[in-house]
Amino acid sequence: MGQRLAIIGGDAAGMSAAANARRRDPDLGIVAFERSGYTSFSACGIPYHVAGLVDESDDLIARSPDQHRANGIDVRIRHEVLAVDLARRELTVLDRNARRESTEPFDQLVVATGAHATPPPIPGVEATEPARTIDAAGRLRGQILRGGADAVVIGGGYIGLEMAEALVHRNLRVTLVDREPQLMTTLDADMAAHVQDAAEGQDIRVVLSAQVEEVLLDGDGRPRGVRTSDGDIAAEHVVMATGVRPATEVAEAAGLEIGESGALRVDDHQRCPGHDGVWAAGDCVESWHRLLERPVNLQLGTHANKQGRIAGVNATGGDLAFPGVLGTAISRICHREIARTGLSESEAEAAAIDVVATTVKTDTRAAYFPGSASMWVKLVAGREDRRLLGAQIVGSQTAGKRIDTLATCIWAGMTVDEIQWLDLAYAPPVSGVLDPVLVAARAAAKR
Amino acid sequence: MGQRLAIIGGDAAGMSAAANARRRDPDLGIVAFERSGYTSFSACGIPYHVAGLVDESDDLIARSPDQHRANGIDVRIRHEVLAVDLARRELTVLDRNARRESTEPFDQLVVATGAHATPPPIPGVEATEPARTIDAAGRLRGQILRGGADAVVIGGGYIGLEMAEALVHRNLRVTLVDREPQLMTTLDADMAAHVQDAAEGQDIRVVLSAQVEEVLLDGDGRPRGVRTSDGDIAAEHVVMATGVRPATEVAEAAGLEIGESGALRVDDHQRCPGHDGVWAAGDCVESWHRLLERPVNLQLGTHANKQGRIAGVNATGGDLAFPGVLGTAISRICHREIARTGLSESEAEAAAIDVVATTVKTDTRAAYFPGSASMWVKLVAGREDRRLLGAQIVGSQTAGKRIDTLATCIWAGMTVDEIQWLDLAYAPPVSGVLDPVLVAARAAAKR
Repeated sequence: MGQRLAIIGGDAAGMSAAANARRRDPDLGIVAFERSGYTSFSACGIPYHVAGLVDESDDLIARSPDQHRANGIDVRIRHEVLAVDLARRELTVLDRNARRESTEPFDQLVVATGAHATPPPIPGVEATEPARTIDAAGRLRGQILRGGADAVVIGGGYIGLEMAEALVHRNLRVTLVDREPQLMTTLDADMAAHVQDAAEGQDIRVVLSAQVEEVLLDGDGRPRGVRTSDGDIAAEHVVMATGVRPATEVAEAAGLEIGESGALRVDDHQRCPGHDGVWAAGDCVESWHRLLERPVNLQLGTHANKQGRIAGVNATGGDLAFPGVLGTAISRICHREIARTGLSESEAEAAAIDVVATTVKTDTRAAYFPGSASMWVKLVAGREDRRLLGAQIVGSQTAGKRIDTLATCIWAGMTVDEIQWLDLAYAPPVSGVLDPVLVAARAAAKR
Repeated sequence: MGQRLAIIGGDAAGMSAAANARRRDPDLGIVAFERSGYTSFSACGIPYHVAGLVDESDDLIARSPDQHRANGIDVRIRHEVLAVDLARRELTVLDRNARRESTEPFDQLVVATGAHATPPPIPGVEATEPARTIDAAGRLRGQILRGGADAVVIGGGYIGLEMAEALVHRNLRVTLVDREPQLMTTLDADMAAHVQDAAEGQDIRVVLSAQVEEVLLDGDGRPRGVRTSDGDIAAEHVVMATGVRPATEVAEAAGLEIGESGALRVDDHQRCPGHDGVWAAGDCVESWHRLLERPVNLQLGTHANKQGRIAGVNATGGDLAFPGVLGTAISRICHREIARTGLSESEAEAAAIDVVATTVKTDTRAAYFPGSASMWVKLVAGREDRRLLGAQIVGSQTAGKRIDTLATCIWAGMTVDEIQWLDLAYAPPVSGVLDPVLVAARAAAKR
């Protein structure tokens, strides 16, 4: 019998590992176990499915189980891995349909178990669910169609904001609650204020610095609102978007190491240290932060895709290394694009890095060009070495992807003095004569 | 009497020099001579003014003569500098309104004379004019309003394409003629083919490999079409967009050096070599190409702005250096964004650089997201050192500005192997899980 690669988790990281291993080794046995009924689905697309912008849930599935099977990958959906025995190279697997347990052997293993939602441990929370899966999104869509005029979203990060906007799109009155004094804590407060303006401009009521204490239920056990430290909010629909944590239980019980970030420790080859032939990738692992020079846990499909590829290539004799992350992220919320990379001013402060921050307000296009609108760029640079360490953008459509240019500058170790002279593209429909990146760098260099 | 800085040319380069000099030295006398009646106008905006997208010509003026005067700059519009005497530090200036010549002294000089259109020397060409100024654009607008159903544009570069699209916008039947076998020779032929598809999709008839031999005139001396090597084309409107050359006559007559590119030679401080206190900037100068490692002449507002700033800062005791260009450019034509940076495959070939080219077709957004559309990315990398040397993008709205990320990669000397792991931003409304830049770099790294 040939070698067998087992994969726990059938989403971005797991199926990227599977597909890359298959491409490199046509004879390898590859089996992937996935708890849900889906593979390779876009969790990032859930809010647009709830909004109705993407009506068919199938559209969120990049590659179905059958498509993976046609590629020679033995996908077992609705199969949950309960335990891993690293010494015996065996998995204990529950077939959730047949309610039957079995033992599955492996030679190599990729752990891609993703992340769990972390709803607050408050009374009534069991009557809500985070819309993180296609099934949960489908239930929320059904519930919205059955009626109700008010919704409350708990959590003001990008998923909370995207869900709030989706519910506005469904003609609901929406309140967004967060315990922090600002939305989007991945941004500095001054930039997050522009996001709040945009949300309020879409008629989302924003309640900050408020603890949610209880989900209020009606006589049938259905939500009728929430109790917060700032008073009660009536709403038929209560959506939790209070963040996630890496799903590491099975791996931890098997003896794999957990890092300081709370996620699975891996080396730059996605190897679990001390365990030959055991790899991990995606939301459940920690990733090297190139600026903080320590591992962090970030849940993003783009990292999952890259790390899964590395695990699949290396499990088949390859030699790829993951060079780390900068914390780049983008979201389009309430007609605003919101992007960040590297360190915010407050993150730099927390890491005791002495920085100078500069913010410019400029236009997305030539000022006279139809559709031109405002955008803000904030740059964070080292006070001594003048290197760019972080950037944040909030602005109208087309503003946000400029974060990629700034992320590339950080990656390359450029100073703001150098960045201001970069040869970036100009034409009136897409930028001013100096791109906002250059305007911001010039302002930062002058400081 | 204090020091006096004279500037020849009141557009991007000249007025950027003036404004920066003024900021640094409040006591300096600054005089700027401009042939036309305008300062600081956006030549790049002319096609949108012709199209009617930007209706008021004043909107194309970033800063009027009076605004510059309020900033302490003595702007003389409709004044043409006829001669420069570098030994006596004097200009001979023609007041075009009063038809009077005078002599103007200077201590330092900035030459920012821009570029001339180069219409072909064919019979009848005097009945046409290139729409390069606000006055010429106004005449063309008037002529269109007076009637006519057909227009022909000579020249298939980005200005010719923008003008063709502008005339389609005015409900004219438009033919675009170029002597080359492809449009947009700044792109490789395979990428230019997508541009031709887009133009033809907008009902622009494209005639390639055709020499224009004569502008046909009616009895009143007005154009009635053109004669080409491919036959006659009837059209009431004939627009020349056959390129420009640096306007160096006055500077050359004064003894300033012309480089191999045909433009004024300057060092990296925008100094005219051998002439203390004489600076030049913008379309009339040559700029260091960072990859070709030789000077080139490129007419772009973004370079003019930067170089003018350097001249103005250095003329007032500063020390800024222009680090060169990559040949980055972008245009939005016929619902397509077209961008390029670095070397095309054919430019690399001409420079005897051994390269590998890779093209990917991908989506501007997550494939399932409303508005997602196709885009092509072509990368050109060194065969041996695997460094990125050039990139071209043709695609739907939002595709093009990704060229900035690729230009930054080239600037930093990155290999395609490194680029594929960059931490770029992902969210369904703005990209696939791997940005097209990463998809293209991954494909190039595999080659």
